[in-house]
Amino acid sequence: MSLELSKKAQAVKPSSTLAITAKAKELRAQGIDVVGFGAGEPDFNTPEHICSAAVKALEEGYTKYTPASGSVELREAISRKFKEFNGLDYKPSQIVVSNGGKHSLTNVFTAILNPGDEVIIPAPYWLSYPEMVKLADGVPVYVYASEENGFKATAQEIAQAVTPKTKALVLNSPSNPTGMIYTRQELQAIANLAVEKDFYVVADEMYEYLTYDGEEHVSIASLGDEIYRRTITCSGLSKGYAMTGWRIGYTGSTEEIAKLMGAVQSHQTSNINSIAQKAAIEALNGPQESVGEMRDEFNKRRTYMVKRLSEMKELSVREPKGAFYVFVNTEGALEKKYKGEKVGDTTRLAEILINDYHVAVVPCQDFGFPTYIRLSYAISMEQIEKGLDWIGSFLSALEA
Amino acid sequence: MSLELSKKAQAVKPSSTLAITAKAKELRAQGIDVVGFGAGEPDFNTPEHICSAAVKALEEGYTKYTPASGSVELREAISRKFKEFNGLDYKPSQIVVSNGGKHSLTNVFTAILNPGDEVIIPAPYWLSYPEMVKLADGVPVYVYASEENGFKATAQEIAQAVTPKTKALVLNSPSNPTGMIYTRQELQAIANLAVEKDFYVVADEMYEYLTYDGEEHVSIASLGDEIYRRTITCSGLSKGYAMTGWRIGYTGSTEEIAKLMGAVQSHQTSNINSIAQKAAIEALNGPQESVGEMRDEFNKRRTYMVKRLSEMKELSVREPKGAFYVFVNTEGALEKKYKGEKVGDTTRLAEILINDYHVAVVPCQDFGFPTYIRLSYAISMEQIEKGLDWIGSFLSALEA
Repeated sequence: MSLELSKKAQAVKPSSTLAITAKAKELRAQGIDVVGFGAGEPDFNTPEHICSAAVKALEEGYTKYTPASGSVELREAISRKFKEFNGLDYKPSQIVVSNGGKHSLTNVFTAILNPGDEVIIPAPYWLSYPEMVKLADGVPVYVYASEENGFKATAQEIAQAVTPKTKALVLNSPSNPTGMIYTRQELQAIANLAVEKDFYVVADEMYEYLTYDGEEHVSIASLGDEIYRRTITCSGLSKGYAMTGWRIGYTGSTEEIAKLMGAVQSHQTSNINSIAQKAAIEALNGPQESVGEMRDEFNKRRTYMVKRLSEMKELSVREPKGAFYVFVNTEGALEKKYKGEKVGDTTRLAEILINDYHVAVVPCQDFGFPTYIRLSYAISMEQIEKGLDWIGSFLSALEA
Repeated sequence: MSLELSKKAQAVKPSSTLAITAKAKELRAQGIDVVGFGAGEPDFNTPEHICSAAVKALEEGYTKYTPASGSVELREAISRKFKEFNGLDYKPSQIVVSNGGKHSLTNVFTAILNPGDEVIIPAPYWLSYPEMVKLADGVPVYVYASEENGFKATAQEIAQAVTPKTKALVLNSPSNPTGMIYTRQELQAIANLAVEKDFYVVADEMYEYLTYDGEEHVSIASLGDEIYRRTITCSGLSKGYAMTGWRIGYTGSTEEIAKLMGAVQSHQTSNINSIAQKAAIEALNGPQESVGEMRDEFNKRRTYMVKRLSEMKELSVREPKGAFYVFVNTEGALEKKYKGEKVGDTTRLAEILINDYHVAVVPCQDFGFPTYIRLSYAISMEQIEKGLDWIGSFLSALEA
């Protein structure tokens, strides 16, 4: 036999943001000041009382295996959170804790997909969804949402993509990369469709703590028994509690699906870090003030960014209502010339910005919207101000 | 479409030790003293200097994302360990850090297998290997090693199982469940076969720190360039450093395979817990005395257990040379009667032991050797003495 490697693994798309990140790192190593709008994680430290719980776990020698799906105590804390925050009844036996939100989603696809099953992914989408689906032998089917509808796919648009092979829909609200939030009404229409056509909804609610302007975060699984049993609700502690490095994701689902995911995880990775589990219990059960404080700070930055970006005539933005990203339409800049040459696409735009203006942004072709860039406001206000100034200088340098 | 779940996930075998573990837990909850020989992890605490490094990481706010394959600093520490401990040259770019040894193995199979590829697994084997291979679309092929050869598969036996579809061989030394160690000579013969027949060797060396009687741990990848590039060397910190709950596994491989595994992991789980990474650096670079101390303590227990078990005429054991398990042939007990009924198989044997003698043991049908049980000596000497007394009482109660 040959040493031929896995075709599926070889087809995995490396992240398109890597080149920009590498360049930013290189410039910083040279002592150059770079503003990185690529951040996918809060710039805050994990709140102190959560870190203290981890130290206590260490002191108590909580360094052994736990049940593969997470300690009972942690799953009870998550169960309570689901009830109080999301209005969802998930018993600990319906909950699986995994090594971050990505791992939760991977377990979901592994549990529900058979080869060739289609998974509808509304675009713009978080770039890992298609790769996860393909690694689990599924086929991603994209539904392109319109900017007019806030980049949110409607039930009608989704219905047009449903085929006899549709196994699931991925629903990400609040959304990465757009920051948009599906309303209760929009979710109800989608829930009706899922029940009628009998497919699963993979509800990625990782950004659920970060909503602004009084917008309501609604969990689609809460809209009735029929949609409840077709939904796998995914969340985690990374974004709301500034705990990205800890790797704590979790799902709520039917007991049947939780059991399957638990069995798979018991062989593939087993439990997540035991100390992180103790920290997670404190995060969920302890004081919640820091969540609100971080949200308030994100909100200030959001307002500022949207205001500044709206004043740049080559760019257009819609005000995001959640998460910590602004999704920027750059068509007005792409058609212009920079140093005598048409900018053309966002890969080139991002290259110019990092090389000549020391601003790192994320071009969104791998999010399904090639003429857009994503700017994160999970960086300090000072950085944001400076970075936007520099983007402004770049835009001023463009010629018709 | 229906809501039919993944056939592959549904076929995952739940661990056969679960019933025994559940029963042991139930008895303990009733206040009954139970001796658990099922332990798959050191009973020692993680050494203090390692825990201190974790506390320092928390104080320094090291709670953010790291590179998906592990921080450069950690991969440098692993690179050095590979060089000094295993005599292997793996650059940091050839190393991927994953959420425990299971996760490393899962990544390996995901990276190298195409549907239908065969993976040779010498039996007795650790029960997760077949499930991992099947989840990665591979086909496990078993080679039953003989007790006479210390439960180690010979190159000739493996050669007989090689087909045009053979993609890899799993080689676990020191072995779970037998505690046996492949010699340099045995490994050389297997390496020659792998090179001749052109298949990968997945070398699971998780127990490499735990060898006794001056036995040498040899990494098969160190036996020449040709076998080096066909080997994925898997290890971790769980067993040697008493860090099971932390979840730190890693691989050394060609850069090509490391890159594939890294890409897969970047979408499926991303990095392992950041704090655990700092602890791992201290474990690898810091003082190593505790590793030797734990090994010495395991060794005392091993000697005692083998002596006691050898005196029980219904059982037979071969002295293990590594890990912390004794693999016990129970044929002499299975053919006898207990309370008027033939014991028959190890599932029944384990049931009697837990129910009537409050001793938990692992029946090994899922390790490929149904008439054997596995006893761990990763429990205190006091527990071992008591548990063996109780097993003795059970054997005395058997009738011809």
